[in-house]
Amino acid sequence: MATRTDVGADADGYPAPSRGPLPTKDVGRLLLRCADRPGLVAAVSGFLAAAGANIVSLDQHATEPSGGTFMQRTIFHLPGLPAARDALERDFAEQVASRFDMDFRLSEAAKPKRVAIMASKEDHCLLDLLWRNRRGELDMTVSMVISNHADLADQVRPFGVPFIHVPATKETRAEAERRQLELLRGNVDLVVLARYMQVLTPDFLVNVGAPLINIHHSFLPAFIGAAPYRRAKERGVKLVGATAHYVTEELDDGPIIEQDVVRVDHRHTVEDLTRLGADVERVVLSRAVLWHCQDRIIRYGNQTVVF
Amino acid sequence: MATRTDVGADADGYPAPSRGPLPTKDVGRLLLRCADRPGLVAAVSGFLAAAGANIVSLDQHATEPSGGTFMQRTIFHLPGLPAARDALERDFAEQVASRFDMDFRLSEAAKPKRVAIMASKEDHCLLDLLWRNRRGELDMTVSMVISNHADLADQVRPFGVPFIHVPATKETRAEAERRQLELLRGNVDLVVLARYMQVLTPDFLVNVGAPLINIHHSFLPAFIGAAPYRRAKERGVKLVGATAHYVTEELDDGPIIEQDVVRVDHRHTVEDLTRLGADVERVVLSRAVLWHCQDRIIRYGNQTVVF
Amino acid sequence: MATRTDVGADADGYPAPSRGPLPTKDVGRLLLRCADRPGLVAAVSGFLAAAGANIVSLDQHATEPSGGTFMQRTIFHLPGLPAARDALERDFAEQVASRFDMDFRLSEAAKPKRVAIMASKEDHCLLDLLWRNRRGELDMTVSMVISNHADLADQVRPFGVPFIHVPATKETRAEAERRQLELLRGNVDLVVLARYMQVLTPDFLVNVGAPLINIHHSFLPAFIGAAPYRRAKERGVKLVGATAHYVTEELDDGPIIEQDVVRVDHRHTVEDLTRLGADVERVVLSRAVLWHCQDRIIRYGNQTVVF
Amino acid sequence: MATRTDVGADADGYPAPSRGPLPTKDVGRLLLRCADRPGLVAAVSGFLAAAGANIVSLDQHATEPSGGTFMQRTIFHLPGLPAARDALERDFAEQVASRFDMDFRLSEAAKPKRVAIMASKEDHCLLDLLWRNRRGELDMTVSMVISNHADLADQVRPFGVPFIHVPATKETRAEAERRQLELLRGNVDLVVLARYMQVLTPDFLVNVGAPLINIHHSFLPAFIGAAPYRRAKERGVKLVGATAHYVTEELDDGPIIEQDVVRVDHRHTVEDLTRLGADVERVVLSRAVLWHCQDRIIRYGNQTVVF
Repeated sequence: MATRTDVGADADGYPAPSRGPLPTKDVGRLLLRCADRPGLVAAVSGFLAAAGANIVSLDQHATEPSGGTFMQRTIFHLPGLPAARDALERDFAEQVASRFDMDFRLSEAAKPKRVAIMASKEDHCLLDLLWRNRRGELDMTVSMVISNHADLADQVRPFGVPFIHVPATKETRAEAERRQLELLRGNVDLVVLARYMQVLTPDFLVNVGAPLINIHHSFLPAFIGAAPYRRAKERGVKLVGATAHYVTEELDDGPIIEQDVVRVDHRHTVEDLTRLGADVERVVLSRAVLWHCQDRIIRYGNQTVVF
Repeated sequence: MATRTDVGADADGYPAPSRGPLPTKDVGRLLLRCADRPGLVAAVSGFLAAAGANIVSLDQHATEPSGGTFMQRTIFHLPGLPAARDALERDFAEQVASRFDMDFRLSEAAKPKRVAIMASKEDHCLLDLLWRNRRGELDMTVSMVISNHADLADQVRPFGVPFIHVPATKETRAEAERRQLELLRGNVDLVVLARYMQVLTPDFLVNVGAPLINIHHSFLPAFIGAAPYRRAKERGVKLVGATAHYVTEELDDGPIIEQDVVRVDHRHTVEDLTRLGADVERVVLSRAVLWHCQDRIIRYGNQTVVF
Repeated sequence: MATRTDVGADADGYPAPSRGPLPTKDVGRLLLRCADRPGLVAAVSGFLAAAGANIVSLDQHATEPSGGTFMQRTIFHLPGLPAARDALERDFAEQVASRFDMDFRLSEAAKPKRVAIMASKEDHCLLDLLWRNRRGELDMTVSMVISNHADLADQVRPFGVPFIHVPATKETRAEAERRQLELLRGNVDLVVLARYMQVLTPDFLVNVGAPLINIHHSFLPAFIGAAPYRRAKERGVKLVGATAHYVTEELDDGPIIEQDVVRVDHRHTVEDLTRLGADVERVVLSRAVLWHCQDRIIRYGNQTVVF
Repeated sequence: MATRTDVGADADGYPAPSRGPLPTKDVGRLLLRCADRPGLVAAVSGFLAAAGANIVSLDQHATEPSGGTFMQRTIFHLPGLPAARDALERDFAEQVASRFDMDFRLSEAAKPKRVAIMASKEDHCLLDLLWRNRRGELDMTVSMVISNHADLADQVRPFGVPFIHVPATKETRAEAERRQLELLRGNVDLVVLARYMQVLTPDFLVNVGAPLINIHHSFLPAFIGAAPYRRAKERGVKLVGATAHYVTEELDDGPIIEQDVVRVDHRHTVEDLTRLGADVERVVLSRAVLWHCQDRIIRYGNQTVVF
């Protein structure tokens, strides 16, 4: 008689926590966007076949049955990709992209994105990203954590990631952003705002040279401004949610990447709502970061397609 | 060899569709609300025990650890309740409610709520309520369907419910409301706005003499005004939802009863969003109506407690 | 002051209930499955481009990074498709499918699937399918409803669909199936078991000449056999679910198309679980039927890919 | 122009991460279970009122309308509870519990449960519990982590919790359990199996003197035995879930506390399913542990009531 499935020591089908990355050698990702017209899929797949690449996966989306925007994500396998990559990119630009007036991006799956995380005092989003990445779940390298407070330094250090304290208040914003830009510009492919509670200026967004992903709470109806969880409680909401989005100059209004909610009821206190909201935030943010790092997201207008 | 669980004809544990109502004979429901103070539960349960009633179920909620609002729903069984009811109500008022300055409501489970449904052209919420009620799921009697259009008459008739066409436009609102009030006042315990697309005036709300429940779509962020599904599509939302609430003079802003959402992605068209939104709307509205008819809801401030 | 968004009569962005079908003229759907190898996407898209077709949408999936099964769904627009269809199919078979040893299926979006629904006494799945189809949500024509009981005849008639009573018990199964096959064979593209509570024999499955979709309840853990909702209640489950699947000779064990669950707790009675389970069943079944009718599903092994 | 809601430094309504515990001084929790009969609520609330206690919250549940099992959880405030507690318990036993043949348990909210966590090599459940407890979310004191592997020692140490390595294999089970019992017996109020991959014997369960909570994956259908995620992938499941339950001698079959699921589709690899399953596991386990530590759970038969 046994109280657990007796399948031998640690052998229930779980991968070991330190499992290696998925096979990414010689795997390329081609993302593109252009005006829709006949022949796009054939042109791209023909180009890749001629180049000796095998298409592993292909997703495409057209915003309208005809005459809209066309987007495609193609994963391909090309032996010797690292050496062939620059020529492939140049050839694609000349032979396909210019012909269809395409925006495109070619990346190698074997090169994880370099990511900076900016945080303040809240630890839930930051630690979840660091922990998932240590497990090998996120396909990224965390280059640094930048915080306007020193509080989380001790929690970040065990992950072997540099923690950089850049004090920032409304008054010292200019100086803080100058310092942040020195750290970030050219060094990272993505900046994640993991509950970073300071305003970033349009100048910063222009100059940082990498996309930014932010996470914030979501309610129905919305509660803009201070103390949203308290006001959601006063309004008796039955759902608490979170939205991850790219940062644009529009206040919390950039292209949505992912959203989720959790049910609450009258027995939940403001503290409970905050705790449950934090649970949703860290899950939603980690999904958004993973999808970005896997080159799954194409932006158009104020929207995203997540393949 | 068989392709379905062979359990005999129609015997897989499903109740027959025409199953009778749950036992409600001699079952009473006591809802109350007052300022919180020690001794409330003891006073109410003592009163009921002295009256010969057995408490079947009791839920209570206090908005604060102390000094807040106290609400309680008590389901009890009292042999001979129909005859004893008026005396019980009077005694409770004198012996308990006046002492604690309580608002309270006593109802008999055996008396289903009399409900009017108001609709326009959309059928999904209306038909779902009628169908659920025919199955015996909603503990209500539908007294009438009032619509400002004649379109749905043929769909309502098979349910054996009166369909009353009261044309209403912005211009004829006063006359339409006069006619609606004649139909409703004193005749119903609840009015359900099942996608009724006309404004109701504050006067109507005051004079109708029954609470109103409304359903509307919900998005994160909110899209106020015309064409919300199209705008939600343009914004690339990942969730589409619905909110059922009591109607107050505040525009779509009364106490929330229930909310739910469904996931969507970039492949969903505006028509898909609308269809999925309708699915959520009918489920959320039917839950809200069921809970109201079971006397599960207590309002306070701009919130609800749903026991 | 108004209590509803005052956007004019019925003008809040909802489509009219009787909206026409999505544009499907000249739209074809090509589904294919074969062993994965380089050049598949290029070959198919090249063929379509040469035939003058514009790819509207393309989804593909490979079960392994290499060496697995490859599946693809391509939606294309080809002016004059109805006339060109047979030649297109023949050319594709000769020029592409034979070369790659493909299974494929070509269908026209403008030709809705002909569907038979089999039911017993439970109405929730049957009526939901009929109602959704009346709204134009399901891209199908319901050719007939076959039931082993007469109970639901009155509820089906208003939808203008033939209701055929074929009594069936364990003893009369052979005769009943003979009669059912006469009705179905060659006349329908899909059979939906909408809580049809009789066993179907392997002979029936072989001879009916159309795929069958079934819906059944799902629990964690599973409760096989009689009275599953009562036993789920006794086990204190916190989730109640439903699974829609293709019917195979394996008892309730065919390829899963869709699953969903709803939360329950100790306050829910067996009747509540049954009601909530029915809600999930009708939603899950309608999704599976819609996806099948849109040619979104490819089967392989005992699984499905739903594009 | 600003890209985040500018509400001042870190002032958006989030509590500081190091917020103190909820007020628990002089708060008691009384859980009871007995055969249902009239007068129970009155007897208990009358006793508490007479003792000078104010009922903060009361939940009760009867398994049948009459003649079933009655369960109640009462939260009360009694000034001077720590000193009065023993007398209160004795008086309740004599004056109420003995009269109704009640099982009951009286606890003080100010005394967090002493908890041992047992783990193996997987870190997700263990670290999530430690992290939530550091944030003050779980109302418990983690007395120790026991693991049959040394792998997680470095990850546990920063939380200031003793990590005790007790090697255990099928062969050394008796010796391992002897050592574990020395550590646990009398020292903890709860044992959490956070992906502990060793069998525990019935003797251990009897002698450990504290309830055990376990977490395991859940699928529809169930996949018993080795490699469940691989087999779920082969079956094409659309949901992956987890179940937290009390441990009994029945293999993975004790009273369910909480369940949840996450949607998956054909694009998810076995590794993705495992990762998403781990996400559900840690959330479901943490909810179960929280509810246990808040004395929200009453067991009866093979079920739980979670108030």
